[in-house]
Amino acid sequence: MTAFRYRVTINRKRGLSDPEGATTRKALQDLGFISVESVSFGRILDLEVDSSDAETAQAEVEAMCAKLLANPVMEDFTIEAVS
Amino acid sequence: MTAFRYRVTINRKRGLSDPEGATTRKALQDLGFISVESVSFGRILDLEVDSSDAETAQAEVEAMCAKLLANPVMEDFTIEAVS
Repeated sequence: MTAFRYRVTINRKRGLSDPEGATTRKALQDLGFISVESVSFGRILDLEVDSSDAETAQAEVEAMCAKLLANPVMEDFTIEAVS
Repeated sequence: MTAFRYRVTINRKRGLSDPEGATTRKALQDLGFISVESVSFGRILDLEVDSSDAETAQAEVEAMCAKLLANPVMEDFTIEAVS
Protein backbone atom coordinates (compact mmCIF):
# COMPACT_ATOMS: atom_id res chain seq x y z
CA MET A 1 0.00 0.00 0.00
CA THR A 2 1.17 3.49 -0.82
CA ALA A 3 0.12 6.77 0.75
CA PHE A 4 -1.41 9.16 -1.78
CA ARG A 5 -1.96 12.78 -0.91
CA TYR A 6 -4.69 15.03 -2.26
CA ARG A 7 -5.74 18.59 -1.77
CA VAL A 8 -9.49 19.22 -1.98
CA THR A 9 -10.62 22.81 -2.54
CA ILE A 10 -14.24 23.57 -1.67
CA ASN A 11 -15.88 26.83 -2.73
CA ARG A 12 -19.40 28.14 -2.68
CA LYS A 13 -21.15 27.88 -6.00
CA ARG A 14 -21.10 31.11 -7.96
CA GLY A 15 -24.06 33.35 -7.31
CA LEU A 16 -24.67 32.19 -3.75
CA SER A 17 -24.33 34.89 -1.15
CA ASP A 18 -21.27 34.67 1.10
CA PRO A 19 -22.10 36.41 4.40
CA GLU A 20 -18.69 35.52 5.90
CA GLY A 21 -16.94 37.16 2.95
CA ALA A 22 -19.14 40.26 3.08
CA THR A 23 -18.54 40.67 6.82
CA THR A 24 -14.79 40.26 6.35
CA ARG A 25 -14.74 42.85 3.56
CA LYS A 26 -16.52 45.31 5.84
CA ALA A 27 -14.10 44.58 8.71
CA LEU A 28 -11.13 45.16 6.38
CA GLN A 29 -12.60 48.45 5.15
CA ASP A 30 -13.22 49.53 8.75
CA LEU A 31 -9.53 48.82 9.42
CA GLY A 32 -8.60 51.21 6.61
CA PHE A 33 -8.18 48.76 3.72
CA ILE A 34 -10.58 50.69 1.53
CA SER A 35 -9.14 49.21 -1.67
CA VAL A 36 -10.58 45.76 -1.00
CA GLU A 37 -13.41 45.11 -3.44
CA SER A 38 -14.49 41.59 -2.59
CA VAL A 39 -13.65 38.72 -0.27
CA SER A 40 -14.86 35.17 -0.58
CA PHE A 41 -14.09 32.20 1.59
CA GLY A 42 -13.43 28.58 0.81
CA ARG A 43 -12.01 25.54 2.54
CA ILE A 44 -9.13 23.25 1.77
CA LEU A 45 -8.69 19.72 3.01
CA ASP A 46 -5.39 17.88 2.79
CA LEU A 47 -6.04 14.16 2.76
CA GLU A 48 -3.72 11.19 2.91
CA VAL A 49 -5.18 7.94 1.62
CA ASP A 50 -3.59 4.47 1.68
CA SER A 51 -4.21 2.59 -1.51
CA SER A 52 -2.72 0.13 -3.95
CA ASP A 53 -2.90 2.59 -6.86
CA ALA A 54 -3.64 6.23 -7.61
CA GLU A 55 -6.93 5.67 -9.47
CA THR A 56 -8.47 3.83 -6.52
CA ALA A 57 -7.23 6.51 -4.13
CA GLN A 58 -8.67 9.35 -6.21
CA ALA A 59 -12.01 7.56 -6.58
CA GLU A 60 -12.14 7.18 -2.78
CA VAL A 61 -11.48 10.89 -2.32
CA GLU A 62 -14.26 11.76 -4.80
CA ALA A 63 -16.65 9.52 -2.88
CA MET A 64 -15.62 11.13 0.45
CA CYS A 65 -16.33 14.59 -0.97
CA ALA A 66 -19.72 13.59 -2.32
CA LYS A 67 -20.74 11.78 0.87
CA LEU A 68 -19.37 13.93 3.67
CA LEU A 69 -16.87 16.65 2.93
CA ALA A 70 -18.70 18.95 0.53
CA ASN A 71 -22.31 20.07 0.32
CA PRO A 72 -23.26 19.43 -3.33
CA VAL A 73 -26.22 21.82 -3.13
CA MET A 74 -24.12 24.85 -2.22
CA GLU A 75 -20.52 23.97 -2.96
CA ASP A 76 -18.22 22.96 -5.79
CA PHE A 77 -15.07 21.00 -5.13
CA THR A 78 -11.87 20.22 -7.01
CA ILE A 79 -9.38 17.47 -6.20
CA GLU A 80 -5.71 17.68 -7.05
CA ALA A 81 -2.98 15.17 -6.38
CA VAL A 82 -0.08 16.45 -4.28
CA SER A 83 3.30 14.84 -4.78
CA MET B 1 -7.01 51.76 -10.85
CA THR B 2 -6.90 48.09 -11.73
CA ALA B 3 -8.48 45.16 -9.92
CA PHE B 4 -5.89 42.61 -8.75
CA ARG B 5 -6.97 39.21 -7.55
CA TYR B 6 -5.20 37.11 -4.97
CA ARG B 7 -5.76 33.74 -3.36
CA VAL B 8 -4.64 33.50 0.26
CA THR B 9 -4.17 29.99 1.68
CA ILE B 10 -4.14 29.73 5.47
CA ASN B 11 -3.03 26.54 7.21
CA ARG B 12 -2.31 25.61 10.77
CA LYS B 13 1.36 25.61 11.60
CA ARG B 14 2.93 22.16 11.49
CA GLY B 15 2.85 20.32 14.80
CA LEU B 16 -0.30 22.00 16.10
CA SER B 17 -3.17 19.63 16.77
CA ASP B 18 -6.10 19.84 14.37
CA PRO B 19 -9.25 18.67 16.19
CA GLU B 20 -11.47 19.38 13.18
CA GLY B 21 -9.25 17.21 10.98
CA ALA B 22 -9.12 14.39 13.53
CA THR B 23 -12.92 14.41 13.92
CA THR B 24 -13.39 14.38 10.15
CA ARG B 25 -10.98 11.45 9.76
CA LYS B 26 -12.96 9.49 12.34
CA ALA B 27 -16.26 10.36 10.64
CA LEU B 28 -14.85 9.17 7.28
CA GLN B 29 -13.62 5.93 8.82
CA ASP B 30 -17.03 5.39 10.45
CA LEU B 31 -18.58 5.79 6.98
CA GLY B 32 -16.34 2.98 5.70
CA PHE B 33 -13.44 4.99 4.27
CA ILE B 34 -10.89 3.03 6.29
CA SER B 35 -8.05 3.92 3.94
CA VAL B 36 -7.98 7.58 5.04
CA GLU B 37 -4.83 8.18 7.04
CA SER B 38 -5.01 11.87 7.84
CA VAL B 39 -7.18 14.92 7.22
CA SER B 40 -6.21 18.50 7.85
CA PHE B 41 -8.19 21.64 7.26
CA GLY B 42 -7.26 25.03 5.95
CA ARG B 43 -8.97 28.12 4.62
CA ILE B 44 -8.76 29.98 1.37
CA LEU B 45 -9.69 33.58 0.78
CA ASP B 46 -10.16 35.02 -2.67
CA LEU B 47 -9.57 38.76 -2.54
CA GLU B 48 -10.02 41.48 -5.12
CA VAL B 49 -8.07 44.66 -4.46
CA ASP B 50 -8.19 47.92 -6.42
CA SER B 51 -4.76 49.42 -6.85
CA SER B 52 -2.56 51.37 -9.21
CA ASP B 53 0.04 48.59 -9.42
CA ALA B 54 0.59 44.98 -8.44
CA GLU B 55 3.28 45.61 -5.80
CA THR B 56 1.02 47.97 -3.82
CA ALA B 57 -1.87 45.52 -4.09
CA GLN B 58 0.22 42.58 -2.86
CA ALA B 59 1.61 44.63 0.04
CA GLU B 60 -1.96 45.53 1.05
CA VAL B 61 -2.97 41.86 1.01
CA GLU B 62 0.04 40.96 3.17
CA ALA B 63 -0.95 43.66 5.66
CA MET B 64 -4.56 42.41 5.70
CA CYS B 65 -3.38 38.87 6.46
CA ALA B 66 -1.09 40.03 9.27
CA LYS B 67 -3.72 42.33 10.81
CA LEU B 68 -6.97 40.45 10.45
CA LEU B 69 -7.20 37.42 8.22
CA ALA B 70 -4.66 35.02 9.70
CA ASN B 71 -3.62 34.25 13.26
CA PRO B 72 0.19 34.52 13.20
CA VAL B 73 0.53 32.48 16.40
CA MET B 74 -1.19 29.39 15.00
CA GLU B 75 -1.32 29.81 11.25
CA ASP B 76 0.90 30.20 8.21
CA PHE B 77 -0.34 31.90 5.09
CA THR B 78 0.71 32.08 1.46
CA ILE B 79 -0.43 34.65 -1.10
CA GLU B 80 -0.60 33.95 -4.81
CA ALA B 81 -1.68 36.25 -7.59
CA VAL B 82 -4.59 34.97 -9.69
CA SER B 83 -4.83 36.12 -13.28
